[in-house]
Amino acid sequence: MTLPSKEEFSEWFHELIQCAEIMDVRYPVKGLYVWFPFGFKLRQLVYAKLREIMDRDHSEVYFPALIPEQELGKEGEHIRGFEDEVYWITHGGLTPLDVKLALRPTSETAMYPMFKLWIRTHADLPLKVYQIVNTFRYETKHTRPLIRLREITSFKEAHTAHRNYEEAEEQVKKAVGYYKEFYDFLAIPYFIVRRPDWDKFPGAVYTIAFDTIMPDGRTLQIGTVHHLGDNFAKTFEIKYEAVDGNHYYVHQTCYGISERCIASLISIHGDDLGLVLPFEVAPIQIVVIPILYKGKEENVLELCEELVKKLGKFRVVLDKSEERPGAKYYKWELKGVPLRFEIGPREAEKREVVVSFRDERKKFSIAVEEINEGKIERWAEEMRKRLREKAIASMLQKLKFSRNLEEISDIVKSSVVMVHLCKDKSCGEEIEAKGGKLLGWIEEMPEFIEQSYEGSCVVCGRSGKLALTARSY
Amino acid sequence: MTLPSKEEFSEWFHELIQCAEIMDVRYPVKGLYVWFPFGFKLRQLVYAKLREIMDRDHSEVYFPALIPEQELGKEGEHIRGFEDEVYWITHGGLTPLDVKLALRPTSETAMYPMFKLWIRTHADLPLKVYQIVNTFRYETKHTRPLIRLREITSFKEAHTAHRNYEEAEEQVKKAVGYYKEFYDFLAIPYFIVRRPDWDKFPGAVYTIAFDTIMPDGRTLQIGTVHHLGDNFAKTFEIKYEAVDGNHYYVHQTCYGISERCIASLISIHGDDLGLVLPFEVAPIQIVVIPILYKGKEENVLELCEELVKKLGKFRVVLDKSEERPGAKYYKWELKGVPLRFEIGPREAEKREVVVSFRDERKKFSIAVEEINEGKIERWAEEMRKRLREKAIASMLQKLKFSRNLEEISDIVKSSVVMVHLCKDKSCGEEIEAKGGKLLGWIEEMPEFIEQSYEGSCVVCGRSGKLALTARSY
Repeated sequence: MTLPSKEEFSEWFHELIQCAEIMDVRYPVKGLYVWFPFGFKLRQLVYAKLREIMDRDHSEVYFPALIPEQELGKEGEHIRGFEDEVYWITHGGLTPLDVKLALRPTSETAMYPMFKLWIRTHADLPLKVYQIVNTFRYETKHTRPLIRLREITSFKEAHTAHRNYEEAEEQVKKAVGYYKEFYDFLAIPYFIVRRPDWDKFPGAVYTIAFDTIMPDGRTLQIGTVHHLGDNFAKTFEIKYEAVDGNHYYVHQTCYGISERCIASLISIHGDDLGLVLPFEVAPIQIVVIPILYKGKEENVLELCEELVKKLGKFRVVLDKSEERPGAKYYKWELKGVPLRFEIGPREAEKREVVVSFRDERKKFSIAVEEINEGKIERWAEEMRKRLREKAIASMLQKLKFSRNLEEISDIVKSSVVMVHLCKDKSCGEEIEAKGGKLLGWIEEMPEFIEQSYEGSCVVCGRSGKLALTARSY
Repeated sequence: MTLPSKEEFSEWFHELIQCAEIMDVRYPVKGLYVWFPFGFKLRQLVYAKLREIMDRDHSEVYFPALIPEQELGKEGEHIRGFEDEVYWITHGGLTPLDVKLALRPTSETAMYPMFKLWIRTHADLPLKVYQIVNTFRYETKHTRPLIRLREITSFKEAHTAHRNYEEAEEQVKKAVGYYKEFYDFLAIPYFIVRRPDWDKFPGAVYTIAFDTIMPDGRTLQIGTVHHLGDNFAKTFEIKYEAVDGNHYYVHQTCYGISERCIASLISIHGDDLGLVLPFEVAPIQIVVIPILYKGKEENVLELCEELVKKLGKFRVVLDKSEERPGAKYYKWELKGVPLRFEIGPREAEKREVVVSFRDERKKFSIAVEEINEGKIERWAEEMRKRLREKAIASMLQKLKFSRNLEEISDIVKSSVVMVHLCKDKSCGEEIEAKGGKLLGWIEEMPEFIEQSYEGSCVVCGRSGKLALTARSY
């Protein structure tokens, strides 16, 4: 099994997912995949970080996966946004159910009837909970592992309730901050974008999204934060008694990240040889490879064992298998092991190790004595920086700024297009007529963008702001 | 909200689950419940132990929740065992699905088509995986939180494949050992019972179950281990190439534990005041309560803070709220906090603390200087022993040995009945005609049972072995 070049991104991704043992794509239902042990471990490590961040400001809960038809249908805009893709359970055994049950596509309508019971007075606010659950969408488009799924296995969804619009808006900002921290940790660059009104979350006042650019120039939405205002509160009658004795509707937010975070991790850092993983989330962080020559095995293996012992804090593999060193390199590069140590007879004699980083692949020697936990952690941090810089550079290659409406339909075929755009829907439609999808307006300027935030709308010439249009997943 | 006496077990359990904030029972669909933050934390702590045990010998994976009709139906006995309680998804949006999808009731039929692909040669064996997932059963009987659910939110299911029957049997024994370790950790006594042939897992060669006795004298199955032989291997064509070059069917096992482990934990250790939790799994392990008198707050609070700092390793709450001490005791006893420290002005002066254990509730004083991590851990271990002894004692009160077939129908109304029984189905049926359910034959003698393992069958007088019959959940 050879991996296609990353130039052929779609094939590369599909093949890598399978051969690096992230997911098995051979499950006999379209849009459903199996997490291999290695992939699941990667998922656990990435989500441990997400949990750590969430736990600072939220409590973890679990709400049922089944939502009765009448609750799902309560919020008019919300149900219209989801009704085509909801899986319906109609039978238990051979018995038709009295009330049809939806498999949660997202959990607003499972949670908010309970929020009504949980929230009585201002003392119950703010309420901040999250859960990491499987959710379901009947996708009719082309499905892809980790990207477009019928069972999203790892949806982290947070839901909060507040006393008023402003406090909910504060939470939106905090949530954006949490997601920045998470993606910075993964060394994944992103745009923070305010979706056009006509493309916001069904039932929301507005939606802020995290978009990244995939190697083929298409954007991937990897996180969203929604201000719900009191829309759902009115539908589900979620009120609290304020200090003044009056009852008011709460204002809510919700925000989510799915296993698309893993899709972006794999796609953005990976290369022609396979996975490239930041040290902290790599299921195997260090591989030690003994180079064995007959009669000289003992010293080599001894030094290898000594090194492994010294690095007990990390996830280390000592590969003593029968394979040739080249085959071992190939295997562990495919799996994205960030750090490789080789020890042959010469190294054993000099008490040295040959070190190689997965992302750089140049080799250098270092005395065993110099290797310690602090050193490894510094290397890890440097690696994360390199990964991020490289990711930004290749993202910028796929990003073009345009002042000319006419050229957009051409550029958007291979790149994300940045323009100045006003908020008029008609100008947005004009942009979308050029072939891309209007992601929206940049909400927070990333440090790697040099264009000025404000400028004349590329369509009508009135005052506009930086916006992105692109082919998107 | 006052808790009913534990004597009224069913009401006590239902009320405690709600008021100790384990689960919210008010979700608007029968048999579905919401994990509160506190309950979810308890779940996480209990399942962390289960994961720790499983991770020693298995890899964690995740298989889809949706199983196509044709796979679910492949193994004849298996599908007959589940067909009445499978939830069927028939529609995606308004579109009828080409192939009906079952919501997994358990994952044999999701996993084994993939095992066929994963297993090629003897080198791929043994294969040992597990997952912790939500599974679904259309229960028509009376549902109860944590016990009889339509969505089992926390099903830990392990699945293994081996070269032959004997190696699979070895794994069955190991699995029984893992479950013993888990329940010993929770201080929950159990019987290890071999189910009658007519009550084994659909598709299994035999089933070993863990049963415990609930406070109302009914038994609760809290874990099962199944030897599947090559039944599923033949259905799903799971073969491997042996060293001799021939192809053989694998032999399989599977074993599971659900959130019934939490039901037993709550029911067996709890008392009239609420939860009683072993130290290691208590979401809050220690509560420090300052007894404040006007003008003397400072010294008291200082010593409290000092104590909290000293115990930073544990999950400690310093309850500085406005409530009266009595109300605080009540609240934290309800939540099962194992260890309570009180500090008033007198204690602050003498640098002492008043200690009270949740299970014993007698108070004693100790110098602050004497409290350290090691001390706390010893107390925790002593508490676990006390909990286990108390649980065994009350379990034995609900267990009666009988040599007289005629009295069983009476005894079984309030107790679990232990008898000597042969393996004849007709004798088993005779026993069940007395009102209980035959749980099966004791597989491993617990140290707290004094009856001899062998004896004359209570029905026919031929040679029999210790068996249990009971009303069961």
